[in-house]
Amino acid sequence: MAIEIKELTSRKENYSQWYNDLVIKADLAENSAVRGCMVIKPYGYAIWERIQRQLDDMFKATGHVNAYFPLFIPKSFLSREASHVEGFAKECAVVTHYRLKNSPNGQGVVVDPEARLEEELIVRPTSETIIWNTYKNWIQSHRDLPVLCNQWANVVRWEMRTRLFLRTAEFLWQEGHTAHATKEEAVEEAVKMLNVYADFAEKYMALPVVKGVKTANERFAGAVDTYCIEALMQDGKALQAGTSHFLGQNFAKAFDVQFLNKEGQREYVWATSWGVSTRLMGALIMAHSDDNGLVLPPRLAPFQVVIVPIFKNDEQLALIREQARKIVDALEALNIRVKLDDSDNKKPGWKFAEYELKGVPVRLALGARDLENGTIEVARRDTLTKETLPVENIAAHVQTLLADIQENIYQKALNFRAENTITVDSYDEFKEKIEDGGFILAHWDGTPETEDRIKEETKATIRCIPLAGDTPPGKCMLTGKPSAQRVIFARAY
Amino acid sequence: MAIEIKELTSRKENYSQWYNDLVIKADLAENSAVRGCMVIKPYGYAIWERIQRQLDDMFKATGHVNAYFPLFIPKSFLSREASHVEGFAKECAVVTHYRLKNSPNGQGVVVDPEARLEEELIVRPTSETIIWNTYKNWIQSHRDLPVLCNQWANVVRWEMRTRLFLRTAEFLWQEGHTAHATKEEAVEEAVKMLNVYADFAEKYMALPVVKGVKTANERFAGAVDTYCIEALMQDGKALQAGTSHFLGQNFAKAFDVQFLNKEGQREYVWATSWGVSTRLMGALIMAHSDDNGLVLPPRLAPFQVVIVPIFKNDEQLALIREQARKIVDALEALNIRVKLDDSDNKKPGWKFAEYELKGVPVRLALGARDLENGTIEVARRDTLTKETLPVENIAAHVQTLLADIQENIYQKALNFRAENTITVDSYDEFKEKIEDGGFILAHWDGTPETEDRIKEETKATIRCIPLAGDTPPGKCMLTGKPSAQRVIFARAY
Repeated sequence: MAIEIKELTSRKENYSQWYNDLVIKADLAENSAVRGCMVIKPYGYAIWERIQRQLDDMFKATGHVNAYFPLFIPKSFLSREASHVEGFAKECAVVTHYRLKNSPNGQGVVVDPEARLEEELIVRPTSETIIWNTYKNWIQSHRDLPVLCNQWANVVRWEMRTRLFLRTAEFLWQEGHTAHATKEEAVEEAVKMLNVYADFAEKYMALPVVKGVKTANERFAGAVDTYCIEALMQDGKALQAGTSHFLGQNFAKAFDVQFLNKEGQREYVWATSWGVSTRLMGALIMAHSDDNGLVLPPRLAPFQVVIVPIFKNDEQLALIREQARKIVDALEALNIRVKLDDSDNKKPGWKFAEYELKGVPVRLALGARDLENGTIEVARRDTLTKETLPVENIAAHVQTLLADIQENIYQKALNFRAENTITVDSYDEFKEKIEDGGFILAHWDGTPETEDRIKEETKATIRCIPLAGDTPPGKCMLTGKPSAQRVIFARAY
Repeated sequence: MAIEIKELTSRKENYSQWYNDLVIKADLAENSAVRGCMVIKPYGYAIWERIQRQLDDMFKATGHVNAYFPLFIPKSFLSREASHVEGFAKECAVVTHYRLKNSPNGQGVVVDPEARLEEELIVRPTSETIIWNTYKNWIQSHRDLPVLCNQWANVVRWEMRTRLFLRTAEFLWQEGHTAHATKEEAVEEAVKMLNVYADFAEKYMALPVVKGVKTANERFAGAVDTYCIEALMQDGKALQAGTSHFLGQNFAKAFDVQFLNKEGQREYVWATSWGVSTRLMGALIMAHSDDNGLVLPPRLAPFQVVIVPIFKNDEQLALIREQARKIVDALEALNIRVKLDDSDNKKPGWKFAEYELKGVPVRLALGARDLENGTIEVARRDTLTKETLPVENIAAHVQTLLADIQENIYQKALNFRAENTITVDSYDEFKEKIEDGGFILAHWDGTPETEDRIKEETKATIRCIPLAGDTPPGKCMLTGKPSAQRVIFARAY
């Protein structure tokens, strides 16, 4: 039976296995023949497309335009910015040749040794270098600023241990790269895009996030400040869902990008970059789903409603189909994405399990008795509850229900985070509590040494220094030295 | 003066230089630091986004879904399909290593010789191999068919001579890959997608195309039949704007993809693939533009209307702006994409030249006298004509005008093609006429040898055997052997 085949490992039994099972069984993604590279399957990609479309609209509404820059980066570019090369020029895919030839032994093809590139090309792990090399030609005067570009692209980082969506050698993302005349404007941009990410996470992904700034240890290679949004997964581990970097003048200096200011003086340009990736899919899956499968927030669900006819024979099916199509029309008139699954080669029970697994927010079931009684069964995925309602005005009811579900999923995640966020003052207590997972608010003396020692001893990292840092000052839980505000510790993905 | 700087080479003087000038000066694209790879600039990318969005809607309306497959292809995969490897495994980017390390001499980074891949990876030149290797796991039974996937992606073919949009080492495209239970269904799919491409070219790009099938010489490496749409550019050269391949069972056999049919027997799956790329941008530019710059069909123009205020002082500007904003609202209410350029640091003359260069279909100019008279100046880009009209109901007028412009651009291209399509019966006449450019309809004996000789002697290729092959049979212009129908010869991009 298909239902049994698709059974998931429970979260309690093995959270990590549950995640892997879910990604595969809900047809979201799978591993490919190329180590560390995934195939994003149509159902997973449909969710990613909704994420993309919404973010793209938000980027455009904040004045950004899309562009496209090369996949390849000349090796020497990576060395231009000193800390950038340390962070990115190590584990990456290197193109050394541009031609294959028939194998001398007649078996397949081999690399043509004569077609060696003079300078190796790196498959972009991120595009600051190639983009700032381009901006050099775009920016001469303050009138050319700001430049507010975004790119949707694939990037490659040669990860040794990969997990579908969470950490893959190739992944899809967007990377915004902006150029500004002043430091203030660049900082403002970095914070603005952090807020866009946070709004998106909360309103669309139903995922509460903490906005904060990274410590020096966790900062993007080449950034002056890295802002981030951090979310808490159901297993108590943190997940960084997006970052926005204030890059200062580091890349402008590395690529000599200067502009004539209003006073006629030459100055280096100020920069930001910001990105989210297919990793968001991992966050979306882990934040809300349960042992029955995916739970999708209605705003990102490829289809928000599925209608399943319950019938004994073709005659019944024909009548039910007629009624169902009217409901489809009524729902579509309200811009609700609906699928009518009137296939007759699968049993209703199989369909119920399938759409539960795939996280469709609302399921409508319609049988012969419903036709007689003028009713319909309405089941919601988030609470797994169902009720029989009059079919009249069902579309309007579903519209309200979808908004309720979106809000309920968010509140549930928010409650979970509240229940799993604690305040700790002693390092002994910290070492005990960190085993339970969750966010721990604690004081830290601000030094990389203390941070490193805590990481080494507990596997916990400082996720961020919250921007809403309204905690009173105190003393570092490890060293007793002064601390301006509490920071968030957690074990993380 | 900016106007002078942006002056284009005329088409008559040097068509090729005119094209290059236009792509650069209209801010569509530019060469990057990486040989053969282009940067698609925001204005160019905005046009590509409109192309993408429209095609994507058409793919979905015909039952297709999007997915994403790896950037890299294991080298051995390319050798699996014999003719495919000949066509694609030669000029390509080869990843041989996965790590860099600090240079021993302290200068930058070098490839770490210890991080050599066991099997080299090829940056995809097209994805049949990796996709059919994946489909093997997706397809077991006739119930799993058809599979109707499309992917939007970047691909790399190591071209020696590159031209922006027309031929670049990296380009953006979509590639559809479908799997079917029967030959008939696969052929039907290939033809269906050819028709989608032709509809798109004609209705959106305003580009008339000939639908046809390629000769064996020009067929996609691995295809049984390659269908194509061919367009004629203003310099009399042909441009292949899209292809759709019936792949038979070639890839199913190469990757052992079989299914159990309804009778319970194992059969190889039937395949198609089809794609269009950023090359369409080249076709769009070359088909319609003139010596003043781009001419964009309204349906693909990032903004369809620009409003330019003509003012002597701030007071005038304030009044004109008020009126202009009302017009913006009225146009947007009709879903017309409009830009109000009320910047005061550029002169109206500069703006006129700039938007002409960028191909904005309709320009509205509004001055102080217009406010008094209740008028507005309306200029159309395609004909370079202008008239002064009552401002009342201007939005409705512009809506009609945009439809007129779309149709006019198409008719102009259609007339151009009609004037430059001739029928030729002797090879001597062919050799003379081919120098004038255009499509030449001639008889051909169907052999690759004849085709090769004509190509060698005249640089003309058979663009396609038209599907609407309603010409009477005849005799090959070169050999006198029988020919079933005329084919289209041209010199091509």
